[in-house]
Amino acid sequence: MGIQVVKNKAMEIAMKIKKLGQDDPRRIVHSIKVGVALTLVSLFYYWKPLYDGFGASGIWAVMTVVVIFEFTVGATLSKGLNRGLGTLLAGSLGVGVNYLANLSGQKGEPFVLGIFVFLIAASATFSRFFPGIKARYDYGVLIFILTFSLVSISGYRIDEFLTLAHQRLSTILVGGAICIMISILVCPVWAGETLHNSVTSNINKLADYLEGFGGEYFYCCEDGEHGVATEKGKSFVEGYKAVLNSKSMEDSMANFARWEPKHGKFRFRHPWKHYLKIGSLTRQCAYQIEALNRHLCPQLQTQDPSQLRRMIEVPCKTLSSESGKALKALATGMKAMTNPSSSSQVHLNAAKSAMNDLKDSLKLGTAQTTNLLEIIPDATVASILIEIVKSVEDLSEAVVELSLKAHFKSIEATVSPEKPQLLHKGTINPFVEAEDEQPHVVISVRGTEDGDLTEKKGSSGTTSLPT
Amino acid sequence: MGIQVVKNKAMEIAMKIKKLGQDDPRRIVHSIKVGVALTLVSLFYYWKPLYDGFGASGIWAVMTVVVIFEFTVGATLSKGLNRGLGTLLAGSLGVGVNYLANLSGQKGEPFVLGIFVFLIAASATFSRFFPGIKARYDYGVLIFILTFSLVSISGYRIDEFLTLAHQRLSTILVGGAICIMISILVCPVWAGETLHNSVTSNINKLADYLEGFGGEYFYCCEDGEHGVATEKGKSFVEGYKAVLNSKSMEDSMANFARWEPKHGKFRFRHPWKHYLKIGSLTRQCAYQIEALNRHLCPQLQTQDPSQLRRMIEVPCKTLSSESGKALKALATGMKAMTNPSSSSQVHLNAAKSAMNDLKDSLKLGTAQTTNLLEIIPDATVASILIEIVKSVEDLSEAVVELSLKAHFKSIEATVSPEKPQLLHKGTINPFVEAEDEQPHVVISVRGTEDGDLTEKKGSSGTTSLPT
Repeated sequence: MGIQVVKNKAMEIAMKIKKLGQDDPRRIVHSIKVGVALTLVSLFYYWKPLYDGFGASGIWAVMTVVVIFEFTVGATLSKGLNRGLGTLLAGSLGVGVNYLANLSGQKGEPFVLGIFVFLIAASATFSRFFPGIKARYDYGVLIFILTFSLVSISGYRIDEFLTLAHQRLSTILVGGAICIMISILVCPVWAGETLHNSVTSNINKLADYLEGFGGEYFYCCEDGEHGVATEKGKSFVEGYKAVLNSKSMEDSMANFARWEPKHGKFRFRHPWKHYLKIGSLTRQCAYQIEALNRHLCPQLQTQDPSQLRRMIEVPCKTLSSESGKALKALATGMKAMTNPSSSSQVHLNAAKSAMNDLKDSLKLGTAQTTNLLEIIPDATVASILIEIVKSVEDLSEAVVELSLKAHFKSIEATVSPEKPQLLHKGTINPFVEAEDEQPHVVISVRGTEDGDLTEKKGSSGTTSLPT
Repeated sequence: MGIQVVKNKAMEIAMKIKKLGQDDPRRIVHSIKVGVALTLVSLFYYWKPLYDGFGASGIWAVMTVVVIFEFTVGATLSKGLNRGLGTLLAGSLGVGVNYLANLSGQKGEPFVLGIFVFLIAASATFSRFFPGIKARYDYGVLIFILTFSLVSISGYRIDEFLTLAHQRLSTILVGGAICIMISILVCPVWAGETLHNSVTSNINKLADYLEGFGGEYFYCCEDGEHGVATEKGKSFVEGYKAVLNSKSMEDSMANFARWEPKHGKFRFRHPWKHYLKIGSLTRQCAYQIEALNRHLCPQLQTQDPSQLRRMIEVPCKTLSSESGKALKALATGMKAMTNPSSSSQVHLNAAKSAMNDLKDSLKLGTAQTTNLLEIIPDATVASILIEIVKSVEDLSEAVVELSLKAHFKSIEATVSPEKPQLLHKGTINPFVEAEDEQPHVVISVRGTEDGDLTEKKGSSGTTSLPT
């Protein structure tokens, strides 16, 4: 029995390891890369000619590899450069201070050195509280304090501190170079690319929610069975929640990305900071979706839908799904690094026109309401959806700004983007512009959305329009 | 002219340094503590008897101090214990592996060692991707890899690797002990206390917003001048935004806090994890406030308030300010670590009764509305406020749960908490229960809120009730 328990536990851990590797195979590759880098620097010890050159300082190479080899290239570069720069600066400062201390004679030397170590350690530690230094040079300042203390303290004992400083610096350079080369040359994980993909996928998550929301919220209008819809909608409902707390990850990725050289489609000075702006607008939109999501809860939905709900159903569904499609087009364009204006603009305009239809419906259909409290949930959903269109517009502007700053390729749309817009502005009657009309406009622009829309059409086919 | 520029720049930097120190004087103390600790370990080099005992390994003590001395006690303890444990485990493993490698003869030794270094470095690196290990033992695993590589690699050259391991461990212990003692004994900064204060102050920020919201939103109803109110309200409007992105800071503080011994009013096993639950509910509430805040924008407010707005003004104001007061009472109770149930419950019940009044107003005053679109902003505000009451209730329950888990002191209220509740339930008419009635209930329970409420009364004194 005891063996069985151990066996089960071992199986469980093995499954966890397998899952961790499957979720992101780059983790396995990274672990192997660290192993290879460490084995390479071991050569400093094993191989005699190298050992004779560097001596016991070879441990600094090992230490450098272990400490600076991070998951992304940017983080490795940032740590490596910080370490190199910190060591260099502190080394020279340490030599200078040692010279000064030597002047003060045998008795005074430890006191002078002690005072310098205290002053420099305290002020450097304080400098780490500056947000700008904390974000980018924290590790460099740490290494600065460390190296300065070591050089100035050992300088008192070992007279050849110049040799020590030189050996330490050269081994750090070798260790750092090995790390950086392996990190860049073998299956590199770029912080910039990670940031780019993460921002894009966050926009996609919001798009999924908005595309699914209409069908989910108005589902009970058709047959009152809500359980099925909730089950079906679980996946898109949970997705956006990850966006809410994405700030710290995006901040650190943007900090690492600026150290990275040109890679893939990204230039050296790619506007990484602008991704933070897009990320922040994405979170703004996610906060609104969070407010919207409170109204998906079944007990808020009456079995017998109010007249208001019947009235706003079509414009709300169109608004929500078109906003979602606009976001999806933005995300797809961003991912491919093409100018997103044409395809997403079509959907954004459709969403805006649905917003106007919604406003018109709200203006017209007032007299019949009997109880304000009953219509409050629907009115709130309508109001939040209207706000979301504004949010999507802001996000769209920010992405267009990014596409200009980062010189995204502009693709020639097979259909002029103005035409469907005008066509849309012509349909004033809210009930004429049902979802079924959309595909004619869009299929020609972006092939991938064809299937997407067909699926959508299938599900909206069951929706009996209340006209 | 050039000197003037340099002078100005220097003045600017000096001002920044001064501000950084004034914002949190603990930063200055921390910097001095690090300086003192480093100067202390320098003794290993300066003082001959100590140097003869430890030899060149003294650098490990210096390194330990620089690397593990963190701002909070918990972080220092966590890093120190991780470093100690990692070194110990890796040291013993390294000795074992060296013994194995020795068996394989002169030729085979480097290969055996190389294979072991690769395997152990790769698997340990992979283990850092487990969220549980990442959060708590990341540094320990790093040190494990480092020490194992150093011990097994140097073991090949220096035959006295046992001496090396022993020296390294003992100097790390000494360095770590100095750090931990200085960190705990001299003006300690506790991660647990920081977490406690941060969660409390976040609840307070939401309370400030809710207390201010009613006056701000309905301000234009009185005289149409909105600019003044916005200027006046700036401070409370901005406060809650910091809550939205508080997750990562709270997570790391909770991780550090569990390493900390008993301090101040906190036991060793204080339920720190529960603070994360409260923090998450606080953010939930902040997301709703974010949705609410979109409606504070002046262009959404009509100069001539709708009938609905006049109708919901009093219950909305009461609901908002009572929710704010309930949160403030929760925060005050939490801060003092006393049982918050009595004082906050009074306000929460008042908020709930205002919510019911609001619902009643909405039920009654329907027939007169002429245009749904015009009333949508007010309806949305009412709806979000109703949701906020639920949020405040959840938060209140979580705080009560914390007070039970953490054995908060229960203070005897000078007034029985049931009486005002019953008194409140009696006031069915929404217009009778204006804010001016509240102070009678509360002053007796909590002295500090006296001034608070008087101030509130002063500002609401300018509000002419529309009854």
